[in-house]
Amino acid sequence: MTPNATSSETDRYERGRRALAEIDGEAGEAVVASLADIAPDFARYLLEFPFGDIYSRPGLDLKSREIATIAALTAMGTAAPQLKVHIRAGLNVGLCRQEIVEIIMQMAVYAGFPAALNGLSVARETFAEAGV
Amino acid sequence: MTPNATSSETDRYERGRRALAEIDGEAGEAVVASLADIAPDFARYLLEFPFGDIYSRPGLDLKSREIATIAALTAMGTAAPQLKVHIRAGLNVGLCRQEIVEIIMQMAVYAGFPAALNGLSVARETFAEAGV
Amino acid sequence: MTPNATSSETDRYERGRRALAEIDGEAGEAVVASLADIAPDFARYLLEFPFGDIYSRPGLDLKSREIATIAALTAMGTAAPQLKVHIRAGLNVGLCRQEIVEIIMQMAVYAGFPAALNGLSVARETFAEAGV
Amino acid sequence: MTPNATSSETDRYERGRRALAEIDGEAGEAVVASLADIAPDFARYLLEFPFGDIYSRPGLDLKSREIATIAALTAMGTAAPQLKVHIRAGLNVGLCRQEIVEIIMQMAVYAGFPAALNGLSVARETFAEAGV
Amino acid sequence: MTPNATSSETDRYERGRRALAEIDGEAGEAVVASLADIAPDFARYLLEFPFGDIYSRPGLDLKSREIATIAALTAMGTAAPQLKVHIRAGLNVGLCRQEIVEIIMQMAVYAGFPAALNGLSVARETFAEAGV
Amino acid sequence: MTPNATSSETDRYERGRRALAEIDGEAGEAVVASLADIAPDFARYLLEFPFGDIYSRPGLDLKSREIATIAALTAMGTAAPQLKVHIRAGLNVGLCRQEIVEIIMQMAVYAGFPAALNGLSVARETFAEAGV
Repeated sequence: MTPNATSSETDRYERGRRALAEIDGEAGEAVVASLADIAPDFARYLLEFPFGDIYSRPGLDLKSREIATIAALTAMGTAAPQLKVHIRAGLNVGLCRQEIVEIIMQMAVYAGFPAALNGLSVARETFAEAGV
Repeated sequence: MTPNATSSETDRYERGRRALAEIDGEAGEAVVASLADIAPDFARYLLEFPFGDIYSRPGLDLKSREIATIAALTAMGTAAPQLKVHIRAGLNVGLCRQEIVEIIMQMAVYAGFPAALNGLSVARETFAEAGV
Repeated sequence: MTPNATSSETDRYERGRRALAEIDGEAGEAVVASLADIAPDFARYLLEFPFGDIYSRPGLDLKSREIATIAALTAMGTAAPQLKVHIRAGLNVGLCRQEIVEIIMQMAVYAGFPAALNGLSVARETFAEAGV
Repeated sequence: MTPNATSSETDRYERGRRALAEIDGEAGEAVVASLADIAPDFARYLLEFPFGDIYSRPGLDLKSREIATIAALTAMGTAAPQLKVHIRAGLNVGLCRQEIVEIIMQMAVYAGFPAALNGLSVARETFAEAGV
Repeated sequence: MTPNATSSETDRYERGRRALAEIDGEAGEAVVASLADIAPDFARYLLEFPFGDIYSRPGLDLKSREIATIAALTAMGTAAPQLKVHIRAGLNVGLCRQEIVEIIMQMAVYAGFPAALNGLSVARETFAEAGV
Repeated sequence: MTPNATSSETDRYERGRRALAEIDGEAGEAVVASLADIAPDFARYLLEFPFGDIYSRPGLDLKSREIATIAALTAMGTAAPQLKVHIRAGLNVGLCRQEIVEIIMQMAVYAGFPAALNGLSVARETFAEAGV
């Protein structure tokens, strides 16, 4: 196996910053900023791996990527703050309110009704803040 | 709140059967058949609620629904047999091999590398059986 | 397999409403009402499948069903609002305060001390509100 | 707070042995024996805390305790070997096959259909071995 | 297998009290006190098994034990109050702020970025209260 | 925030390869090789982020890092193959058999007895293969 990694670390970091800004907007930047005092390197990893590596990959459009993330975070039930950021992200990349509600409701089948109910609570709050 | 439920139970059951056949194909029918000896009513619920109710809803296409399910089952890490059925289902409704791999890899970000690695093992096995 | 479903959807919905009222009382009705603005169909599913189908089944009395639910929600640790509703439900269907405490303590064995401690916190708050 | 612990450690260990034998039978003794080579002290803790302390408490009958355990292990989805032992234990303390199936089916509501389906698979296998 | 348990229950309880005081300090004693009204026996079990048995064992130093606990609670993502107590405990037994941050960041690999981000939030709050 | 990333991607990849070889040995290289046919880029990410970034950081020695990983994987209960690799890794970086058993037993407190029992099963198998 040979690595197809020709870009420098700085390129990857900048690509991650752009992806974060496009996808998560201000909410994502607030997460990065909040890490400055406690774990600044972790802010860098967050930009580089999830955003610089994963979300920047071809092969799956951003709308599909946010469907996957909203579904997973709802099903896990341990990541309300991150679910909120990604419901905003879903709206940013073109999912409509009803599609997001459909994804969350569907999780009742796979992770149970409490997971879906708690996901809908996060969605209600996020939609209110986003004015949709 | 008034229920907008005008169809009979039998309609709902039949709608579920058709949805299961379209989405999960033989693998789904095998799950239903396997319940006959131990919990036949549960087979009925499985057809009625997940397939007759949820997957039959407008507002989110089947491809998007399978993205959500593959993501959630990979992230949860407790449902390898069901992940296998839904990787087949994803292929059935139009996801390609690479899109499924992308969804599973992305779960490393939200549920950790072991969840993604174990999801990729299930995918490898399922792709081999499906000949894709 | 033939479905033994002769009742109409409306019967099932009404059976679910009655079961919810009997088991969860006002707390359950508040959950249903809270869904009206964001996912009204999900309120219907909640009445139909968990309450119209599962809790209405013969073969296990309501007291035993609430023991199962309190145990599961405590062990999962991701469903504090639903645990609260079901501790109330347990009291409604005849469990006493001490039985509920026993169920939650036992979860230390299966899901760890933090799950049991967090379940006891929810119980303390719920008992105070219920005046038991 | 004063500890109401007047029995000696040996009493507690013996009480745990008797409770394990009554509840889990040979399957439980096999678990204890399997620990002899790797973690003998853990076998002692297993007898003392879960069985000597928790299952020996008044305030909740053994049938109710096994309902709680079967529900929790099904919902968690990470403990198939232990679920098997406790389905046997449920039969030992007076739960019938149908009651156990009802508990597991109900978990679809709280932990999703995959958790219930996987629990039913364990139950099918356990019932076959137990000849019920 | 013969139990090597020669100490009385009271010895074990007292050993647990001392271990709790040494490791968790006031935060641990607050947890024990909070159980007095709802489940006083559970306070006893908490002293006896985790502290009297496990943390009192030779074979692994307290610093290593707290690394294990902070890692597990961060990865599980369902035990924020207990993670807080054990970040304090980590500081009490000699872990420095940076080591704790390293443990939590590492959990991004095994349990995902949300688990690590939520763990870092708990750490930030705990460090502020502890003045480190 | 400015990224302190002066090394090239290739440096990071090579640092990850060396860390993987040192820590996980052949078992880790087998994981990487197994990804070649299905997700070669994921093999690269696995080397770069967990090993090139996290395990290569100063501030926490490798022995402490493996304590954290063994604890987390045992507690999560969804990652038996990865737990096996990291028990080997623990032995590689200087943990002895008894220390590993202590970490796993301790998880009974935080994640329940089934998680610890299943972790001990993985350890027994791994110790046998490693001849310790």
